[in-house]
Amino acid sequence: MGGATVLPVEGLPEVTLTFNIGKAIAGQIQLEDGDIIAVSQKIVSKSEGRVVRLDETDPGPEAVSLAARAGKDPRLVQHILDESRSVIRVDEERGILITETSHGFICANAGIDQSNTGAEDEAILLPLDPDGSARRIRVELETAASVRTAVLVTDSFGRAWRQGQVEVAIGCAGIQPLDDWRGEKDQRGRELTATVISLADQLAAASDLVRSKTDGVPAVVLRGLGHFVTEDDGPGCAAQLRDPADDLFR
Amino acid sequence: MGGATVLPVEGLPEVTLTFNIGKAIAGQIQLEDGDIIAVSQKIVSKSEGRVVRLDETDPGPEAVSLAARAGKDPRLVQHILDESRSVIRVDEERGILITETSHGFICANAGIDQSNTGAEDEAILLPLDPDGSARRIRVELETAASVRTAVLVTDSFGRAWRQGQVEVAIGCAGIQPLDDWRGEKDQRGRELTATVISLADQLAAASDLVRSKTDGVPAVVLRGLGHFVTEDDGPGCAAQLRDPADDLFR
Repeated sequence: MGGATVLPVEGLPEVTLTFNIGKAIAGQIQLEDGDIIAVSQKIVSKSEGRVVRLDETDPGPEAVSLAARAGKDPRLVQHILDESRSVIRVDEERGILITETSHGFICANAGIDQSNTGAEDEAILLPLDPDGSARRIRVELETAASVRTAVLVTDSFGRAWRQGQVEVAIGCAGIQPLDDWRGEKDQRGRELTATVISLADQLAAASDLVRSKTDGVPAVVLRGLGHFVTEDDGPGCAAQLRDPADDLFR
Repeated sequence: MGGATVLPVEGLPEVTLTFNIGKAIAGQIQLEDGDIIAVSQKIVSKSEGRVVRLDETDPGPEAVSLAARAGKDPRLVQHILDESRSVIRVDEERGILITETSHGFICANAGIDQSNTGAEDEAILLPLDPDGSARRIRVELETAASVRTAVLVTDSFGRAWRQGQVEVAIGCAGIQPLDDWRGEKDQRGRELTATVISLADQLAAASDLVRSKTDGVPAVVLRGLGHFVTEDDGPGCAAQLRDPADDLFR
């Protein structure tokens, strides 16, 4: 297997509603067949109008009660609840609600982001359908650059047991999110029994290495990994979710 | 920020006890100042003699009982218990013991690996001190190649909530495992409040992109990220562990 290159896409303009993200990326970097493009959730959400104003939010009693426990803005908590199926844990110490989002992701504050929004009283929600967002951007890229690519929509999630956030994939198109080696043999001929690799999350993590949190680089190209790019869009990151019945840590 | 390159180190020989891993890597690839070298736990463990024979293992009653619940070899379970502070969950369905290792990692089967050992009745334990292993390999690399590098010792861990394993760092030297942006301002001047990035784990994940589980590439060079490489060895991956009192998912 050869090497891979991770390239930040510099100079993207401010993203607004209905912004063509794929076209903008293709305008900033010469894309090649087999490139995998990781796009930050935040610009995807902005392009889809997933921005809410807190001063127009009227929090209900559950939001007010949870907000008091966690020391959070009740209006923000209302949006966290609106975006979630259930509250998994309340971290009163750090002021974090860990919830299961409507998509099935378990993360802090339903993935809602208040930084970088351009106004104190706005919050950015996760895309409604991140796999659909990835498919749309993939089409935009192919239209703009006439190349076959794969697309990841990524966000920073915390983890159980380990400090620090890592970039993970919340949507993907043109790639199998899970790389399944079960049934294959290792070098000694022994069957690999439990080896399913989260390719999408490993790609997302790699994409975060070439930017800082302050430099505003919302897209990264991973090159040299074209063997992972599929003709079909594939199952998307929904396939990465663990069945709740199968999950020991809820 | 520029781009990064991820390069597999091909052609490493079979690793035996007291093997000089750094020298072997430096013999296979022209290293540069600022390179970050990710080394698979398995070869580190082999070089440190962390291999046990199951036919010489006499399982005690707790191991026998847990083995029956999880459908595992009681001799292997005895080693899992020997390497662990506590059992966190028993996944009877999948035959996995999720334990907290003596280092404080929470992972499947105490990180003990039965594949690729060369004999049916052997198992490879995690290094006793993976941060110490990383420091030793860093010295070996600097001695062999006269360059300043950083070293990660990596292993594949499963996660709560998300399917698939990702490569994470269990030891490091020459790098701050956590990249702390708290207190910094984003592009709009808003303070980043909760942004600690697990740099070590993101580097580990990136390293896994350029090898397959069957090709036996146990070392990978990450290049172009020399700004992360520190003169000191730093705190090691021990700094990445979440304080149990602070952890909502045990």
